[in-house]
Amino acid sequence: MVNINSDQISEMDKFYRISLMNSISGYKSVNLLGTTNTNGITNLCPVSSVFHMGSNPPLLGMVIRPERGHNDTLQNIRSVGHYTLNNVLPEWYTQAHQTSASYPSGVSEFDVCGFKKMYASKFKAPFVAQSTVRIGLELREIIDVEINGTSIIVGEMVLILAEDTLIGEDGFVDHVKAGTLAVTGQDSYYLPQALGRLSYAKPDEVPNSSLL
Amino acid sequence: MVNINSDQISEMDKFYRISLMNSISGYKSVNLLGTTNTNGITNLCPVSSVFHMGSNPPLLGMVIRPERGHNDTLQNIRSVGHYTLNNVLPEWYTQAHQTSASYPSGVSEFDVCGFKKMYASKFKAPFVAQSTVRIGLELREIIDVEINGTSIIVGEMVLILAEDTLIGEDGFVDHVKAGTLAVTGQDSYYLPQALGRLSYAKPDEVPNSSLL
Repeated sequence: MVNINSDQISEMDKFYRISLMNSISGYKSVNLLGTTNTNGITNLCPVSSVFHMGSNPPLLGMVIRPERGHNDTLQNIRSVGHYTLNNVLPEWYTQAHQTSASYPSGVSEFDVCGFKKMYASKFKAPFVAQSTVRIGLELREIIDVEINGTSIIVGEMVLILAEDTLIGEDGFVDHVKAGTLAVTGQDSYYLPQALGRLSYAKPDEVPNSSLL
Repeated sequence: MVNINSDQISEMDKFYRISLMNSISGYKSVNLLGTTNTNGITNLCPVSSVFHMGSNPPLLGMVIRPERGHNDTLQNIRSVGHYTLNNVLPEWYTQAHQTSASYPSGVSEFDVCGFKKMYASKFKAPFVAQSTVRIGLELREIIDVEINGTSIIVGEMVLILAEDTLIGEDGFVDHVKAGTLAVTGQDSYYLPQALGRLSYAKPDEVPNSSLL
């Protein structure tokens, strides 16, 4: 068994620690985050820190690090108030990863990485046409986290654009059918295989498993 | 194409909306969250809202809803200051799911769901012996989110207990080898298959892909 304590963590090589701490907690969603500035210059970057905050109102949170070159993204969200999350597919995941490169200001990752913009009426931020599940969000709150200088962006889901037959009769989204990828760490991509869907857990009852 | 706007979202059946909003953003990590109260009564429940907040200090955030029966967990974290996150394996994922059932106060999900407690020196919260990747966290901050009454628990990773050969030379954790599962929504479990690990993205350079 490997046993790592906080003294060892603080003495770690920087890149070793970044790799370990980014990958230790398991699989993460990966989405392309689409924004625009007030002059219409668009921005696209991968985000793997999205988390569910509630269903009514339907809220997603995500962590943005101002110091790591995401200034355009944060600035765009602040000034425009709209942003999009778009799932990543196996056919073009290397292009999606490429949007994390530091392109000069004024260059849109949509253009240089080969993504087609899709717009919806009354919604300012661009969606990714190649995705199959797209979420339009309206900024609700920015929480500044003092302990490490990050910001938690809280947005309300106000628009969902999904390909046909991906949303089930009970509202469940079939991400296997959608082709959605997952990530671990900062750079490793996975295609999940369904294991089972379990019934609501009750004391003294074994959960039923149904195939997905 | 399915196009769902905010008016339609607000008119949705409650359970349809919960299912949709929990599953729309993609795959999520699933961990068993281990806590104890000051009398040594332990608690275990699944958590799928864990997100990476930074590597130095190494921080994980997670969302807890006080109104949904997680009072024990939140109270335990507040009073003891330590908690654990433990990965979920295919062999016993139905048992892990079963820990979400509402057991009477004083009953430990470790005992009724068949999990063995593992303790580390000077660390108060119990780990799950059956897991292969276990994280010990120390509470750093509780952020109350006014917009929907949830709490974001921010913890520093101070202890890592992992089975041998899971952490690579560069710090990367191999969750395929670890057997770690992912979830979508509240009840659907997946076993991810590796697609590729990509090199750091730079402008005008195609990312290299290496097998995982």
